[in-house]
Amino acid sequence: MKNLQCLSLRTTNDCLEVLDQRLLPHQETWISTRNVDDMIAAIQGLALRGAPAIGVGAALALGQSALQGTTKEQLVIESKKLRAARPTAVNLMTCLDRMDEVLRTDFSAAKLAAKAEELFREDVELCDRIAHFGAPLIADGETILTHCNTGGLATAGRGTAFGILQAAQEAGKKIHVFVDETRPLLQGARLTAWECARQKIPYTLISDNMAAYQMSLGRIHKVFVGSDRIARNGDFANKIGTYSLAVLCHYHRIPFYVAAPKTTVDTNCPSGLEIPIEQRSADEVRGHKGSSGEVSWAPRNCPVDNPAFDVTPASLVTGWILDTGLYNREDIRNGLHLTGA
Amino acid sequence: MKNLQCLSLRTTNDCLEVLDQRLLPHQETWISTRNVDDMIAAIQGLALRGAPAIGVGAALALGQSALQGTTKEQLVIESKKLRAARPTAVNLMTCLDRMDEVLRTDFSAAKLAAKAEELFREDVELCDRIAHFGAPLIADGETILTHCNTGGLATAGRGTAFGILQAAQEAGKKIHVFVDETRPLLQGARLTAWECARQKIPYTLISDNMAAYQMSLGRIHKVFVGSDRIARNGDFANKIGTYSLAVLCHYHRIPFYVAAPKTTVDTNCPSGLEIPIEQRSADEVRGHKGSSGEVSWAPRNCPVDNPAFDVTPASLVTGWILDTGLYNREDIRNGLHLTGA
Repeated sequence: MKNLQCLSLRTTNDCLEVLDQRLLPHQETWISTRNVDDMIAAIQGLALRGAPAIGVGAALALGQSALQGTTKEQLVIESKKLRAARPTAVNLMTCLDRMDEVLRTDFSAAKLAAKAEELFREDVELCDRIAHFGAPLIADGETILTHCNTGGLATAGRGTAFGILQAAQEAGKKIHVFVDETRPLLQGARLTAWECARQKIPYTLISDNMAAYQMSLGRIHKVFVGSDRIARNGDFANKIGTYSLAVLCHYHRIPFYVAAPKTTVDTNCPSGLEIPIEQRSADEVRGHKGSSGEVSWAPRNCPVDNPAFDVTPASLVTGWILDTGLYNREDIRNGLHLTGA
Repeated sequence: MKNLQCLSLRTTNDCLEVLDQRLLPHQETWISTRNVDDMIAAIQGLALRGAPAIGVGAALALGQSALQGTTKEQLVIESKKLRAARPTAVNLMTCLDRMDEVLRTDFSAAKLAAKAEELFREDVELCDRIAHFGAPLIADGETILTHCNTGGLATAGRGTAFGILQAAQEAGKKIHVFVDETRPLLQGARLTAWECARQKIPYTLISDNMAAYQMSLGRIHKVFVGSDRIARNGDFANKIGTYSLAVLCHYHRIPFYVAAPKTTVDTNCPSGLEIPIEQRSADEVRGHKGSSGEVSWAPRNCPVDNPAFDVTPASLVTGWILDTGLYNREDIRNGLHLTGA
């Protein structure tokens, strides 16, 4: 397999490795995934996270397996096992659909490996196109707030919302980033802060409830977030806390942008009302469990609500940045995001 | 000294004890404070917290010392030491001013102890009056969101905002409380959740960034918060995250109330612009340190902004609930909260 490298995955001399995101930000440890079972363990154990990164990682593992001489019949079984690793990640299915097509129609080990490399490169390009359309929205000297982790760790490329910030800095603009810690799983504090430091982007970590106060002081010029699913009417689901930011931006007249690949647009979903919201474990809110330790600060068994996502209505969004272009509310009403026109 | 008992302090047979709030919610341990130095240690170590509770605790410690036979000269020195225990807590100064007056003008051990008991009882009555004016605002079946800890742990009485919720339940109203965890120090998750469980008030713990989503679903009918300082024009400072809730209530047309004793109104402070905001340690945002353990989830030395409070403008407040009455925006413009009319 060719030598590929991104923030969360790398292949060198037929060795496929995954950066263990559970140990970030304190340790940068690469896990060697020698076979499909190793990759499944990495995905299920959350060493590899971020929907696009998971999809590409699974494809690379299958490609590597083919090059190691695994039979076509065995590869079909391995593909099914990979697909079941995290059944809700849509990108995983999309990537494996395309790998399966090679297996079904025109299989050779080299072709399957080449398809995995293609999926990797495509994700990089997708991120670059999102950054291309988004970066001009940021002016020199601006301070941007972002939520959760939408950077290189979550994709094979530079990320979605976070990729835009990087591209703006690379274009010579002096920017500053406010990073929401993003309770309960703290992807902002653990991962986005680490990516900012790594990219030498000046940043400030805050707890989520401080964003409004920073806005009231005029410290935040724009907000960029990612999305897990965009409905036909432009409503979108993203990490819990995103809707709160959208309302706060509306009140403070701060532009609020969502960035995602066009594949995030669910054409079968008419509006945000139809997006199901995953409820996660109460213990995530009662405390924190991570590589740096485990604490539980709330009463044992205390009642908790823990929606992983919330829905932001299109009326609160200034612009949708997809890999096909930048869309405003008028464009969304006209369905331009559906055709990619 | 008489037998007094509240959630955070108790005196029995001349023994003064403090509930160690650092060990909540997992352990309820009472610390025996045998002298003024013990009380100073309890205050400085945050075993006793909440501005009114600290003031009353300091007064009780001085009263106990007098009954133990400490000389007047020594008591004057002890009062000064207590005053320095937490120099920013205004209630501590107010309580000790009144203790010092007894020392200066009409000292006897019994009189000093009686003054401490009076301060305790006054705080209880103050909370009861706030609850009296606030509880009628809550209708049967309503769900209330609150932030930080404003309950019995923070006062000698039933608390301010939280006391209102208790009183509403005691009046036979069926209520449900959403408890903001209140990052970074998690007073909601640690203390308010514990008080809800103790008072058998049905509640749900959420992380701060989930409040907006709950509002969008119509699950929150009213918000009640406390205050650390109220300016002449009705702007007020409270725990960071309060302003965010006020903006979210404004957008969702949810009534937003602030509750505090009238002594919180700073007549020398014209508006919120003049309220200084304390900046606290970056490590509070980088992780969590408590009785249940210590974790650091952010990059070491990562830049942080950690304002302990924010300022909510009067324009976002539906009503001010003081021990002198309930005031609307018109009342505040007319200065009724200043005279207590």
